[in-house]
Amino acid sequence: MRYGAETQITRSVIRGGGILRITDLIAKKRRGERLTADEIGFWIDGLETFADYQNSAMLMAIAINSMTESEVTDLTLAMVRSGRALDLSRYGECTVDKHSTGGVGDGTSFIVMPVMAAEGRVAAKLSGRGLGHTGGTLDKLESVDGVRTDLSEKEFFSILDKTGIAIAGQTAELCPADKYLYALRDVTATVDSTALIASSVMSKKLAAGARNIVLDVKTGKGAFMKTQKEAEKLASFMVRIGRRAGRNTSALITTMDEPLENRVGNALEIEGALEVLRGEKRGDVYEVSRSLCKALGVEPERFDRAISSGAAYEKFESMIYAQGGRAGCLDRLPRSRYTAVVTAERGGYLVRTDAMTVAETVLDAGGGRRRKGDPILPEVGVVLLAESGDRVEKGQPLARLHYSREGDGELAVRLAQAFDISDERPKPRSRVVGEIV
Amino acid sequence: MRYGAETQITRSVIRGGGILRITDLIAKKRRGERLTADEIGFWIDGLETFADYQNSAMLMAIAINSMTESEVTDLTLAMVRSGRALDLSRYGECTVDKHSTGGVGDGTSFIVMPVMAAEGRVAAKLSGRGLGHTGGTLDKLESVDGVRTDLSEKEFFSILDKTGIAIAGQTAELCPADKYLYALRDVTATVDSTALIASSVMSKKLAAGARNIVLDVKTGKGAFMKTQKEAEKLASFMVRIGRRAGRNTSALITTMDEPLENRVGNALEIEGALEVLRGEKRGDVYEVSRSLCKALGVEPERFDRAISSGAAYEKFESMIYAQGGRAGCLDRLPRSRYTAVVTAERGGYLVRTDAMTVAETVLDAGGGRRRKGDPILPEVGVVLLAESGDRVEKGQPLARLHYSREGDGELAVRLAQAFDISDERPKPRSRVVGEIV
Repeated sequence: MRYGAETQITRSVIRGGGILRITDLIAKKRRGERLTADEIGFWIDGLETFADYQNSAMLMAIAINSMTESEVTDLTLAMVRSGRALDLSRYGECTVDKHSTGGVGDGTSFIVMPVMAAEGRVAAKLSGRGLGHTGGTLDKLESVDGVRTDLSEKEFFSILDKTGIAIAGQTAELCPADKYLYALRDVTATVDSTALIASSVMSKKLAAGARNIVLDVKTGKGAFMKTQKEAEKLASFMVRIGRRAGRNTSALITTMDEPLENRVGNALEIEGALEVLRGEKRGDVYEVSRSLCKALGVEPERFDRAISSGAAYEKFESMIYAQGGRAGCLDRLPRSRYTAVVTAERGGYLVRTDAMTVAETVLDAGGGRRRKGDPILPEVGVVLLAESGDRVEKGQPLARLHYSREGDGELAVRLAQAFDISDERPKPRSRVVGEIV
Repeated sequence: MRYGAETQITRSVIRGGGILRITDLIAKKRRGERLTADEIGFWIDGLETFADYQNSAMLMAIAINSMTESEVTDLTLAMVRSGRALDLSRYGECTVDKHSTGGVGDGTSFIVMPVMAAEGRVAAKLSGRGLGHTGGTLDKLESVDGVRTDLSEKEFFSILDKTGIAIAGQTAELCPADKYLYALRDVTATVDSTALIASSVMSKKLAAGARNIVLDVKTGKGAFMKTQKEAEKLASFMVRIGRRAGRNTSALITTMDEPLENRVGNALEIEGALEVLRGEKRGDVYEVSRSLCKALGVEPERFDRAISSGAAYEKFESMIYAQGGRAGCLDRLPRSRYTAVVTAERGGYLVRTDAMTVAETVLDAGGGRRRKGDPILPEVGVVLLAESGDRVEKGQPLARLHYSREGDGELAVRLAQAFDISDERPKPRSRVVGEIV
């Protein structure tokens, strides 16, 4: 029995010398009262002096009783202070960053950032790895032979100086308080809290230093925010935090019931982005990218020109090589060993391709990780061969599963359930369902 | 920085082999949903295999969202199962126990238990130590020279066989889950939760084995439950748990705005109880004790007789000697080195003596403990020399502070603030304001 922990627990009640006591602050939030900036600072600054069980009790009280906008801003700023922020001030006002709350088949970063760089902005993005059903920008980039994302601050700046675009991993010094709290939230059922998600995302965005930030908040079956109302609340929270912190911040709310592009998987999504950058493909991913760039101050006509002129492609290519890509790497992306095709069980209109089913298939084929640190297979994934609204015949190929481990072919059976075919033609719907600009 | 705790945190997400996951249960309670008996059992049975931060997150979710009566019963029974319960079945149906939620100057246990024993019941009580402003039965008993409360189970039964009455400390094997959770609640601002208080109290009462239980739930300024409504809710919760577990359970709700007796302090309260047992004093403590015994099935007339005949006194005395009291110990209770008298600042009616002010004075004079394990001075305390409703003259003594450390005499200044004198005569009020019988 471990019940002897009692003594150790009792010892940490009072923080030496201070007037504030962490238990009083937890009690305040438990009662649903508002914490002051000083109180939030006391908590976050002293995070490591309090016990995990006190921090988790506070997180649960926040998750249930939420926080006001000003509390979340204070929490965000305190988390930024916990580490070392990037100083992009040498580039003036033209630094841009883009963040998505996690989608399926969403390679917009590889389109938006190059377009912004082609338009003379400094596109500096720090990103994370994939976890669960959502892909990770770093994993996708690293599927390109030789590309590194573990850049030192010096390397990051030197690439920005040279190309105006760089995408790297977050260093351990960036918002360590957020890293600690996120890990604790993960094991205490406090992940899906608007206040905690907003402060976690925005602390990393603020610490990453860009003056202009656009947020792509996903809503729907394949997103963390299942309803548009929740997504709007989160978007509005994050935009106001950004603005209070003096950053030019805007947000789009986009649907994520279906994958954004017709390719889901690490290397496959790079391939998809290359198609768009080469002007070979349009569709939803193009529209969403254009809207994101508009929110960052680039008009749609200029967006189109950056693509059609090849300027955006060149920016992406120069970033790939600056970050270590080997000669010809973009022409030989990794390929899966096997493929399996899913065909239509009946004729009709394809009304929906379920993002979660596709994502789970890719995850199970080894394209994502269930736990932090799991290895991934960059080459596996799903290519969708028909899109919503298309008329399909019985037996027509709907998707191709790319897999590399024998036996994973049977995942195609589950993948087949992703497709919803009906006699009625669905109404076309825009992906962008809301914006805060 | 300790942020490296991340890995360790992640490891304990899933309990090996089980279908239940603690994070799912925490999430359920976070959403305010009802946990099943199996789920509560899974949590409590596995308490030591989960991390402190997960247990504290669950406690916070319970503290905010509460639990239904059946959930609290399941929680209580699971905590009883966590340890070794006392088996009093050899005494049949006549075992009695009494519990108070913590008052000031409340020596009713030393009256109720002897009366019940005098009436042929087996009065078996396991008790705790004082913490904060409330006194502890064990501390009071141990102020008597030689008396021990750390009885082995064998000693406890042998004393019960001989005298029909014993009051001992809770062993480490009694509800270890409650001990662990209580310590965790203490440092995570989750103490004052009706569901958690009810399950904590009742788990210990059920484990202590008596068939008949009476609860004295205090309400008012000197109690944990500040309003009568809160006290009623707690009492009703506890009674229903007791009855669901097959025990004959009842409760009184009594006010604790003023100390129950005119003596507050460890040895002083024993002295007060002796006065009542000898038939020398009546007042509130007598009335409340009589009501508690009535709830346990002893009619008021029989109560009066047990006192006037000296039978109850004899039971108390035999218990004191059976538990180690030295010859003549009740005639030489410890005495403080100094006393200081507080007098009335003006003439009028004494309308109120604030229980918290008196309790804090005794605590500061060394009569209680702020932290578990602190040593106490058994001889210090306060004797009230006038009671509510009395007409007092300016300069008339209102209380006598008993203290033993030089300098503590100045505590009398604060003690003086306990007394509220007015020109208007207060209405006499009953201590017992509610009952569930």
